[in-house]
Amino acid sequence: MSDHVSDTERPRLGVGMVGHSFMGAAHSQAWRTAPHFFDLPMRTEMTTVAGRRLATGQAAADRLGWLGADPTWQSLVARDDVDLVDICTPGNTHAEIAIAALEAGKHVLCEKPLANSVAEAELMVAAADKAAAHGVMAMVGFTYRRVPAVQLARQLVAQGRIGTVRHVRAQYLQDWLADEDTPLSWRLDRSQAGSGALGDIGAHIIDLTQFITGEAIVGVSGLLETFVTERPVAQEFSGLSGVAGTERGPVSVDDAAAFLARFSSGAMGVFEATRFAGGRKNAIRVEINGSLGSLAFDFEDMNVLNFFDATEPAAVAGFRRIVVTEAEHPYIAHWWPAGHGLGYEHAFTHQVVDLVGAIAGGTPPAPSFRDGLAVQKVLDAVERSASDGAWREP
Amino acid sequence: MSDHVSDTERPRLGVGMVGHSFMGAAHSQAWRTAPHFFDLPMRTEMTTVAGRRLATGQAAADRLGWLGADPTWQSLVARDDVDLVDICTPGNTHAEIAIAALEAGKHVLCEKPLANSVAEAELMVAAADKAAAHGVMAMVGFTYRRVPAVQLARQLVAQGRIGTVRHVRAQYLQDWLADEDTPLSWRLDRSQAGSGALGDIGAHIIDLTQFITGEAIVGVSGLLETFVTERPVAQEFSGLSGVAGTERGPVSVDDAAAFLARFSSGAMGVFEATRFAGGRKNAIRVEINGSLGSLAFDFEDMNVLNFFDATEPAAVAGFRRIVVTEAEHPYIAHWWPAGHGLGYEHAFTHQVVDLVGAIAGGTPPAPSFRDGLAVQKVLDAVERSASDGAWREP
Amino acid sequence: MSDHVSDTERPRLGVGMVGHSFMGAAHSQAWRTAPHFFDLPMRTEMTTVAGRRLATGQAAADRLGWLGADPTWQSLVARDDVDLVDICTPGNTHAEIAIAALEAGKHVLCEKPLANSVAEAELMVAAADKAAAHGVMAMVGFTYRRVPAVQLARQLVAQGRIGTVRHVRAQYLQDWLADEDTPLSWRLDRSQAGSGALGDIGAHIIDLTQFITGEAIVGVSGLLETFVTERPVAQEFSGLSGVAGTERGPVSVDDAAAFLARFSSGAMGVFEATRFAGGRKNAIRVEINGSLGSLAFDFEDMNVLNFFDATEPAAVAGFRRIVVTEAEHPYIAHWWPAGHGLGYEHAFTHQVVDLVGAIAGGTPPAPSFRDGLAVQKVLDAVERSASDGAWREP
Amino acid sequence: MSDHVSDTERPRLGVGMVGHSFMGAAHSQAWRTAPHFFDLPMRTEMTTVAGRRLATGQAAADRLGWLGADPTWQSLVARDDVDLVDICTPGNTHAEIAIAALEAGKHVLCEKPLANSVAEAELMVAAADKAAAHGVMAMVGFTYRRVPAVQLARQLVAQGRIGTVRHVRAQYLQDWLADEDTPLSWRLDRSQAGSGALGDIGAHIIDLTQFITGEAIVGVSGLLETFVTERPVAQEFSGLSGVAGTERGPVSVDDAAAFLARFSSGAMGVFEATRFAGGRKNAIRVEINGSLGSLAFDFEDMNVLNFFDATEPAAVAGFRRIVVTEAEHPYIAHWWPAGHGLGYEHAFTHQVVDLVGAIAGGTPPAPSFRDGLAVQKVLDAVERSASDGAWREP
Repeated sequence: MSDHVSDTERPRLGVGMVGHSFMGAAHSQAWRTAPHFFDLPMRTEMTTVAGRRLATGQAAADRLGWLGADPTWQSLVARDDVDLVDICTPGNTHAEIAIAALEAGKHVLCEKPLANSVAEAELMVAAADKAAAHGVMAMVGFTYRRVPAVQLARQLVAQGRIGTVRHVRAQYLQDWLADEDTPLSWRLDRSQAGSGALGDIGAHIIDLTQFITGEAIVGVSGLLETFVTERPVAQEFSGLSGVAGTERGPVSVDDAAAFLARFSSGAMGVFEATRFAGGRKNAIRVEINGSLGSLAFDFEDMNVLNFFDATEPAAVAGFRRIVVTEAEHPYIAHWWPAGHGLGYEHAFTHQVVDLVGAIAGGTPPAPSFRDGLAVQKVLDAVERSASDGAWREP
Repeated sequence: MSDHVSDTERPRLGVGMVGHSFMGAAHSQAWRTAPHFFDLPMRTEMTTVAGRRLATGQAAADRLGWLGADPTWQSLVARDDVDLVDICTPGNTHAEIAIAALEAGKHVLCEKPLANSVAEAELMVAAADKAAAHGVMAMVGFTYRRVPAVQLARQLVAQGRIGTVRHVRAQYLQDWLADEDTPLSWRLDRSQAGSGALGDIGAHIIDLTQFITGEAIVGVSGLLETFVTERPVAQEFSGLSGVAGTERGPVSVDDAAAFLARFSSGAMGVFEATRFAGGRKNAIRVEINGSLGSLAFDFEDMNVLNFFDATEPAAVAGFRRIVVTEAEHPYIAHWWPAGHGLGYEHAFTHQVVDLVGAIAGGTPPAPSFRDGLAVQKVLDAVERSASDGAWREP
Repeated sequence: MSDHVSDTERPRLGVGMVGHSFMGAAHSQAWRTAPHFFDLPMRTEMTTVAGRRLATGQAAADRLGWLGADPTWQSLVARDDVDLVDICTPGNTHAEIAIAALEAGKHVLCEKPLANSVAEAELMVAAADKAAAHGVMAMVGFTYRRVPAVQLARQLVAQGRIGTVRHVRAQYLQDWLADEDTPLSWRLDRSQAGSGALGDIGAHIIDLTQFITGEAIVGVSGLLETFVTERPVAQEFSGLSGVAGTERGPVSVDDAAAFLARFSSGAMGVFEATRFAGGRKNAIRVEINGSLGSLAFDFEDMNVLNFFDATEPAAVAGFRRIVVTEAEHPYIAHWWPAGHGLGYEHAFTHQVVDLVGAIAGGTPPAPSFRDGLAVQKVLDAVERSASDGAWREP
Repeated sequence: MSDHVSDTERPRLGVGMVGHSFMGAAHSQAWRTAPHFFDLPMRTEMTTVAGRRLATGQAAADRLGWLGADPTWQSLVARDDVDLVDICTPGNTHAEIAIAALEAGKHVLCEKPLANSVAEAELMVAAADKAAAHGVMAMVGFTYRRVPAVQLARQLVAQGRIGTVRHVRAQYLQDWLADEDTPLSWRLDRSQAGSGALGDIGAHIIDLTQFITGEAIVGVSGLLETFVTERPVAQEFSGLSGVAGTERGPVSVDDAAAFLARFSSGAMGVFEATRFAGGRKNAIRVEINGSLGSLAFDFEDMNVLNFFDATEPAAVAGFRRIVVTEAEHPYIAHWWPAGHGLGYEHAFTHQVVDLVGAIAGGTPPAPSFRDGLAVQKVLDAVERSASDGAWREP
């Protein structure tokens, strides 16, 4: 760890966060942690937090490490001491908050999926473009890009180590809805979440594969399914899902999504996202086969990237299990010695580091709102395709 | 090993095999081996072999353990001492040979895919039905069903251990065509092979998943691709593929196939078959998620079945890595002690054992020609879907 | 997350940390993080830090999140606002600092190994016993005990799920010294580190296996080796090891250690610790076989515990890959949803949580200094055995 | 497959096998199979088999594929049409049979361990040396050497790919005795088996590691244990173990063995052999760390060799999972296409191929009786060390 610039020399960056549930906890840990492991070029301050359930707002502020709380996101956005708005709310609120914040000249970090519709996402991109002209930055939170093994995958593709991409297969498998008595939550409500497995977790593998390959999905054939159409209404929220009551209500989103895809280069894609894969907890599996090699990643073994180099002599070729914890690997020099693996939340810290770096450097951060819109268009194409059975273009 | 019935008490079963390349070698090893590990109810005799390239016929007979050779498949079928015809030739010849053999009153074991078209397969089923009336049996060689771990998977589904099936994901990944200079062979010629990865290896995962789940595929959306459209013409054949010459010729089949599927129960299916997955040699991966549990199999670890039992307490639930080599497991009591795993060819021996048992017992063997036709219809539906982009029914 | 007690109601716990290198960074992250994920019964304050290299002390204080810095550990221990001293220095300083702190009435958390000799460790235990009479707590930092998968392993053994323990095999494999040009550091200097791989990493697997089994090692036969006896002198320290200069100096500790062991119950143990296992980065592997089942853990897959239940029917028995990220698992309810795995540093946070709980509850924390002494005696017995080739008792 | 020499041109090799249980079945399959996949330079004939239980001898001859049966091993050895004696009996009979056969001018393949004592093994080596002067060959059946992945491991070490060997860790884990009611068999009787886990399975990992490294074990510190000292007497034998009766008898061998070792080059070795590792069926694990790389093998994944090349850049280094099924790999060109893995018994076929090649070529086969004696001396040193607790030299 090198000496870092003293606090007084670095410009201050006041952060306000909207939402304080699962994503809020992850983002807070990132804002708290980043300055202690990385030499941030700005002096970040965790200024304020706002949330829908005001009663718990102040407690959340203390608990999550924010200096104060705001009664509404509107008041938070209006504050002079907030330079960046970090949006951790359900998708139906993203557009309104993000556009207001950008118009108020605040940088924005917005959780994924960018919005609940292409139309909303397009408005957000327009707002981001306008803001960019004044040096205001906007970024969407496809956090898994910042797992070191994923960054390494991108580097290897960019270096040509796997040649021309021919196959992309990606799965995001969870099982928390496999039990038919898991209660309802906002994630199962179309009006709040936009879609189900498709937008919540399918969005991640769309972004991940476009990021790693550097290519765009140009056509899809989709299939959506809701296996359990009614569930208990949650009485009390706690974490991801609530505690079940006796009443039952409708599930208005997909439980699972699958689609075939064509990438811009002609590569074939096969995608699947589900919360019904018993025994798979958060298995984000991406495998890419190119003309010179292959890459395979599974988030259940998140500190590992498997790499097959087809240019090796056949007698000694094989998938290399790269433990991505060396100082030579992305982000790692700031953490622990080799083999002392990172966890889920570290990617959020890397997100903060990269975003603050982009703001300080005046360079647009990635993934941009435009990247988020690209994902949104794929989600939309999958839904359109699933509804009529025809191939659709994003 | 119990004492077995003396040879004179058991009826004789004369076998004639057509084709003596890769599949011929595997079938021969099965016919040679089965009587030494299993108590066959018939006295099998490896009577004769026939092949397209007569010059090597006799050598192949000696090498592969057959008593003699026939100049043509026709002469083989005509022999009185041949009771069963084992067809190991390319798909374009299956219908003609199988129908002739059945009409001659010979039992038939026919390699997969059953035929190169639905029309041919239907003629074969008609011939098999007619022959069945006279106690003549017909079976198609979807050998992977007889890997012990696959049999165990079927048993667990049939016992209700995974509940209602919701997801089927299956991949058959090879990489022997990833190199653009791998030469042409009959497997890349549509007139002989019918299709490419789709029929050669995709057929296996269609049959495997229908077998394990006990359900039928009722709709598909398919995608086919030929990445390398011209390859060197092989000068000399040796094993799977030939030795390249300087001339180049067209590849007339798909290099890779992917399709979404609906099963009869409503389960979602995602399939992919390719010979371009660098580093994957013969990875047949099948994962099935049900309401009560999951199963996962990968032929690269063929003696293992992974089983997740969702009825276990969450604190101790997890995929069990069942090493399918116990005496309690299918076929295993006839082989080695626990942990002394089987290889690729053992499933062919099991196929012989089951077929001979069916013939001796007068019970129709499975998979039947009708099962083979069912696969053929799915292959056909995938091709139709891939050509116009619409969902198709088999 | 439940509401937590307000700050004013909870007693304050002022913490002073000595040492600010690798372990200092890990402990600091734990002190910073624990209050945000767990309802600590005391209001912890990161009061002050002290280190050997004063110049960097203040920078380290800021960087690591401490309110201030002390010029010496003595001044830190003398402060009234320090209630707990957290010792993160090399082993040769542990006894002096810990005893002084305990005598000053401060609780102590001391990094492992407890000391560099049995004699020192015994003095520390005596000081801890004396302090305990006045409600002052002492704990040694065998952090890996607090990986959730390890806690689950302990629970399963305690519940009798694996029956009588027969075999313990444990390896701690690293490779950072495999390169002969890796420079010297205090960890290779006997006067500071006490021993090499034996005390640094072997100590962990001794403690882990005694903890999980609930048994003591009662006899050992040891073997030590130094493969590379001279290395470059480091010019500048950075992380675990320094940057090499041209001068070379002696390695005065073991590079690798192995020993056979007997446990109190009669179980056999096989241990190995090395920094020369190329490709193994921080592989802490523990496998325990009992009369009713087995457990296997590998830190390279730290969120997983493998459990074999021999009471299952043979047809479905197999090692279960338990992904230890369920709310039902130790510590996990405070973190993320299932499958969102933890990393290396989380065990340090759990250590802080447990220690603060013990102090607030007035119950002695584990592992105690006596547990640390028990490990020290095994280390000593291994060294004695290695020097004369005879079995030795700890 | 190339054309092979016609039968009349190749010299005949008449084989007589003694013993027809587990090993007899494996050897028979090898003699039956080898000529069909490999171009053997001799025309092997499975002439005759002899066994202790005469009643089943003839049935075994038919079942196992031998032309006839002999009433005793003496009569078998005396036959003119037997050129090679294949010894598959318990260890206490090896010396007598092998010496008689060699003196009768027969080539000998003798199962491992070579004998039940060093004294016997020395007599066998003397007999082999004497016979060698007349062109008579002797080989010991350490079959696992001939698993393709093990051969590849040896090649990589010999090519210097892992540099100087520093660590050898080897385990042979089974669990068939973990159940205390598994009945007695000859393998638990010291008078027949010589020792227990040590000689039965420990012998394999001693030979494997000496073979792969090209080094000799020069010192050991051993530990033996018998966990279950009395077991049911088997009423009827079937496979590896019998069916339990009500009577109980003593176990006179070790259930488990562990030892530390020094290799001739100074490398450290850690060995463990047990039949009490619940859930491990036939896990032969060998890991070797050298100055330039590492190798890891586990027979539970027998078609795979893991290879770490430390000379790779850190960012892309990792254990390569080499699927050892390419035509470039040892023996594989004679079998199946890539990815169509071999099973347990294939190594026995390779043994036959190599032995027949050695006899035809007049070159001494490996492993020789002297190699078998070297293993015997290590077994003996472990027993001596275990009895008095001191390090011992083989």
